[in-house]
Amino acid sequence: MTFDPETLVYDQRGLLPAIAQDAETGEVLMLAWMNAEAVAKTLETHRVTYWSRSRKAFWVKGETSGHTQELVEMRVDCDRDCLLLRVRQSGPACHTNRRSCFYTAIEHGAERELMTPMVE
Amino acid sequence: MTFDPETLVYDQRGLLPAIAQDAETGEVLMLAWMNAEAVAKTLETHRVTYWSRSRKAFWVKGETSGHTQELVEMRVDCDRDCLLLRVRQSGPACHTNRRSCFYTAIEHGAERELMTPMVE
Repeated sequence: MTFDPETLVYDQRGLLPAIAQDAETGEVLMLAWMNAEAVAKTLETHRVTYWSRSRKAFWVKGETSGHTQELVEMRVDCDRDCLLLRVRQSGPACHTNRRSCFYTAIEHGAERELMTPMVE
Repeated sequence: MTFDPETLVYDQRGLLPAIAQDAETGEVLMLAWMNAEAVAKTLETHRVTYWSRSRKAFWVKGETSGHTQELVEMRVDCDRDCLLLRVRQSGPACHTNRRSCFYTAIEHGAERELMTPMVE
């Protein structure tokens, strides 16, 4: 069956959430949003391309920072309204320079930082 | 710093996406949605509790199927608008009886099933 990005289920803004996971270690790096064109661009270029909700523009991950995400595999979930991107992440995925955006744990009712920014 | 679920950033429906990941293997199992009360219930009971958008009701994962998710650790991302739930999943996470909802890969422009339903 040929894959058509238009067959995915987008919300009222035309977006769906995409989870980026390190293809090698399994670490969950970040969640961002894609529209059908971003899905198509990502599959075509293998450079992960999100839709920036704040800038209302395509966001080729790492285009300015150099911290690119190379697509290894794209997966779609059972409801076709969410993507899992297995990627090769160069450097930090988070804008705080941490490897992952999920660097804060909730433990016994308090927040605890699990990671420090990466040194380059 | 004491954690208050109300300090998270919810969308206009009062929801945020929560990614469930197998705490042991790192496998991404599913994505569903939570409101502030679902976050509080999950932290209190350690039974992962989502908000069902279709039923407009709390959804204690596995309450009817028995395929529960026990919370091992909750993490919040840098923007505070997404959660990562590290869980102990009993049986399949997906309603299709597959371990993960992300059982379909997009490969060379076509869809390929990566997993078959679990046999109990």
